[in-house]
Amino acid sequence: MIVEPDLALAEHLFTRLHDLSFDGVGITRDAYGAGEQKAHDLVRKAAEEIGLEVKLDAALNLYITLPGRNRSAPVIMTGSHLDSVPRGGNFDGAAGVLAGLAVLAGWKKAGHVPPVDVTVMAIRAEESAWFPISYPGSKAAFGKLPAEALGLPRADSQRSMAEHIAALGGVPERLSHGAAALKPENIACFVETHIEQGPVLIEEGLPLGIVTGIRGSFRYREARARGAYAHSGATPRSHRRDAVVAVARLVNALNDDWEALEAEGRDLVVTFGRFSTDPAQADFSKVSGRVDFCIDVRSFEPETLKEMEQRLKRHVKAISEETKVTIDLGPRTSSDPATMAPSLRALLMQRAEMLGIAAKEMPCGAGHDAAVFALQGVPTAMLFIRNANGSHNPLEHMEFADFAAGARLLASALDMKSGVNLASADQNERPAVDA
Amino acid sequence: MIVEPDLALAEHLFTRLHDLSFDGVGITRDAYGAGEQKAHDLVRKAAEEIGLEVKLDAALNLYITLPGRNRSAPVIMTGSHLDSVPRGGNFDGAAGVLAGLAVLAGWKKAGHVPPVDVTVMAIRAEESAWFPISYPGSKAAFGKLPAEALGLPRADSQRSMAEHIAALGGVPERLSHGAAALKPENIACFVETHIEQGPVLIEEGLPLGIVTGIRGSFRYREARARGAYAHSGATPRSHRRDAVVAVARLVNALNDDWEALEAEGRDLVVTFGRFSTDPAQADFSKVSGRVDFCIDVRSFEPETLKEMEQRLKRHVKAISEETKVTIDLGPRTSSDPATMAPSLRALLMQRAEMLGIAAKEMPCGAGHDAAVFALQGVPTAMLFIRNANGSHNPLEHMEFADFAAGARLLASALDMKSGVNLASADQNERPAVDA
Repeated sequence: MIVEPDLALAEHLFTRLHDLSFDGVGITRDAYGAGEQKAHDLVRKAAEEIGLEVKLDAALNLYITLPGRNRSAPVIMTGSHLDSVPRGGNFDGAAGVLAGLAVLAGWKKAGHVPPVDVTVMAIRAEESAWFPISYPGSKAAFGKLPAEALGLPRADSQRSMAEHIAALGGVPERLSHGAAALKPENIACFVETHIEQGPVLIEEGLPLGIVTGIRGSFRYREARARGAYAHSGATPRSHRRDAVVAVARLVNALNDDWEALEAEGRDLVVTFGRFSTDPAQADFSKVSGRVDFCIDVRSFEPETLKEMEQRLKRHVKAISEETKVTIDLGPRTSSDPATMAPSLRALLMQRAEMLGIAAKEMPCGAGHDAAVFALQGVPTAMLFIRNANGSHNPLEHMEFADFAAGARLLASALDMKSGVNLASADQNERPAVDA
Repeated sequence: MIVEPDLALAEHLFTRLHDLSFDGVGITRDAYGAGEQKAHDLVRKAAEEIGLEVKLDAALNLYITLPGRNRSAPVIMTGSHLDSVPRGGNFDGAAGVLAGLAVLAGWKKAGHVPPVDVTVMAIRAEESAWFPISYPGSKAAFGKLPAEALGLPRADSQRSMAEHIAALGGVPERLSHGAAALKPENIACFVETHIEQGPVLIEEGLPLGIVTGIRGSFRYREARARGAYAHSGATPRSHRRDAVVAVARLVNALNDDWEALEAEGRDLVVTFGRFSTDPAQADFSKVSGRVDFCIDVRSFEPETLKEMEQRLKRHVKAISEETKVTIDLGPRTSSDPATMAPSLRALLMQRAEMLGIAAKEMPCGAGHDAAVFALQGVPTAMLFIRNANGSHNPLEHMEFADFAAGARLLASALDMKSGVNLASADQNERPAVDA
C-alpha cells in the first residue's frame, strides 16, 4: 500500500491557480513574468505551510524537499513547469508540480520519511512561446544556459531574459558564469508528470501513459519555394514553374516515406504545419510563384532522423529539377532525442499494474524539461495523464480522477525503499553527459 | 500585296494612351471610369479626324467603320477592349483596337474601299478586375447582358455598373431591356487581335499565333479543407486529420490526371493558384486544421472539362475518406469553350505564310470578348502577338515590330475580296446561337 497523496491540497491549488491566471479567455502564466510568479508564490507558500524545505536557484527555479533518512545520498526528483502559453490551459506543466507536491504533502502529514531526499522542482519558462530557446529554466539549473540566451527578448515585452529574471529577484550574472544548482551525479532520478498533449490516451480509453522516449527533431521553420507567377489559362504545363505543385509533391513524398518507415516499425512524425501562397499575389487565375512552408520531423531514433533528413534533401533536389522551382529550406534547428531509463519505465509499469491502473507505454512527441535531465545523464522517466482537446488552448481538459491516478502512481514510484540502490543500478545505463 | 496599315498612327496612339493612363506604377484604365473613357475619347477623335464613321451603343461600346461597296452585306468586324487591370500594361486590349484602326486608316488614306463595311469595335469593360462578370461590354452589344448585372458594384467605387454607364452618357435602361446593337446574322466575321498572355511565342521565338479555340473553364475559387489542429510531435499518423496532407494529395492527383490526359493529346490546364493554411492558427508545431485553396481547370474540349470535373469529385471523396479531412469545394463558376472558325484559322495561317511571317496555331487560355462573338454564332478568330513577362502587370512588353506584323496580317485577312462569300461559307459552321 502507498501513503495517499494529499489530493485535496492539489485540487485546492488547481482552483487557486486558475483564479490567479485566467485572463478571460484562457490561462496565461507568462514565463519570468507576473503570471508565472503568482503560481510560484502560491506553490511555495503551500509547501512552507506544510513544513517542507524550500529553496530557489539563481534562475528562480523552486525546489521543495522532504528530507530523507540519508541526506547525503543522491536525491530523487520530480516536477515540471508552472508557466503556460498565452491563453492556454490550467494543467500543462502545473499538473506535474502539484502531483509531486501532493505526494510530499501526503508523506509529510503521515510522518513518512523516505530513504533519501525527495525534491519537487517547479521549473521556470518551459513554454517557448515566450523566449526563443528551449528549456532555459532546467538548462540554467544545470549551469548549461548559454550566456547569450540571457539577452534574448521575450516575445511580448521585448525585454531581455536577464531583465525579466532580475526583476523577479533572480541573479542572471551567476547564470552567465554557468553556476549550477544541480549536478547530475547528485540526482538519483527525475520523474516528470505531465498531461498528454496528443489524443492517444483519450482515444484508447487509458488514464495514464509511460513515456518510452522524448522525440528529437529537425525543423525548417522558414522554408520557401520560388517558381514564377504566370497566367493560369495561358501557360502550358511545360512552361510552368508552379510553387504549389512543387511543395505539394514534397509533402506527398515525405508522407510516403513516413508511411514506409512506420511500416518497418520506426518511430516518426512528419508535419508541414504551414503551407501558404503569398496572399498579396496569389490568385485563382495565376500559377503560384511562391509558397512559404515549414517542416517538422520528429523521432526518438537518431538514425531515423538522419535518414529522413537525407530523404528530404534528395526529394528537394529531384523536385526542384523536375518542376524548375527553387526550394530553399532556410535555417535549420534541431533537438536530440532523449531516452527514458528502462528501469524506471519498467518500475512505473509494474507499479501501475500493482495499483490496478491501466497504462500503456508510448512515445512523447512534445519537448519537456525531462529531456534536459535525460541528456545530462540523469535516469529519467515521464508519466502522462490523459487529457482532452490537446494542450496550448483553453479547451485543454484533464479529469481530476485521472490526475489522482497519476499522483498515486507517482507516489508509488518515488517511494523506493531501494532509492539509493536504484540510483546505483541506473548508473550503468546513463548516457554520456550532454550527449 | 496589302495596303500598308498606318503604323505611325498606331505608334503615336500607344504613346498617348500610355501618357493618359500611367499611374506611376503601371497602366490603369478603369472600366466604365475615367481611365477607360480617356482611351475611348482618344481613339474616337483619331477615327473622326481620319474621316471614318463613328457610332456608340447604349453600353458605350465604340464602332469605327470604313464603308464598303456593298453596305447592306454582313459587316467584317475586328477589335478588342480599351480598359486595363489596375496597374497593368499598355497593350492588353489596346493592341487589338489600334491594329484595327491602323488597318482602316491605311485603307482610308490609300483610297481603298473594301467589298463590305469593315468595323473596328472598341469594347467596354473586358477586365473582370472591375465588375464581377465576364464581358459585359460585348454581351451588352448583343443584348445579352443579364439585367441584374447592371446592379453589380465596381470593386473599387462600390457604385453600380448602371451608375457608371449613366455617368459617362450611356443608357443602362435600354440594356436592361436587352436592346441589341449587334445581330449575329449581320456580322460576316470577328477577328480579335490581342497580346499573348502566356510565354509560348516568346519561348518559341515566333511573332504571331493563330488561336485554335478559347478555353472554357470550371472554377472553385473558395474551396476549403477542414481537418483538426493537433500537436505535431504528440499526434500519431493514425490520429491525424491533416488539411495540408489532404489538399497536397488533391494537387498531386489532379496533376497526374493532367499529365495522363495531355499524353492522350487532350487540351488542358490545371491550376491551384492559392493554397493557404490559416495565418492566425498555423504553426510549425501544429498539424494544420484548415487549408483554403482554389482550383481553375480549363480546356477547349467540353468533354475534357466534364471528365476532369468527374475525376475531381472522385478524388475529393476518396481523399476525404482516407484523411478524415472534410473538403468543401464551395461555389462553382464556369465558362463555355469557344471554337474558332476553321476557315478563318486557315485563312490567317495562309496569309501569314504569304507575308513571310512565322506563326503557329495555339490554344488561348485566357478569356476574351471573341468568345462572346463565337458563342453568338459569329465566325470568329483570334490573332496573338508575342508579348514578354505576361500581362496584367507593368512589365508586360510587346515589341512594336511584332505589333506591325500583327497589323499587316490583320489587314491581309480583313481585306477579303470575297468577304461576302466567306461569310456565307462560314454560315455552315456556325454553332447554335448562345451555345
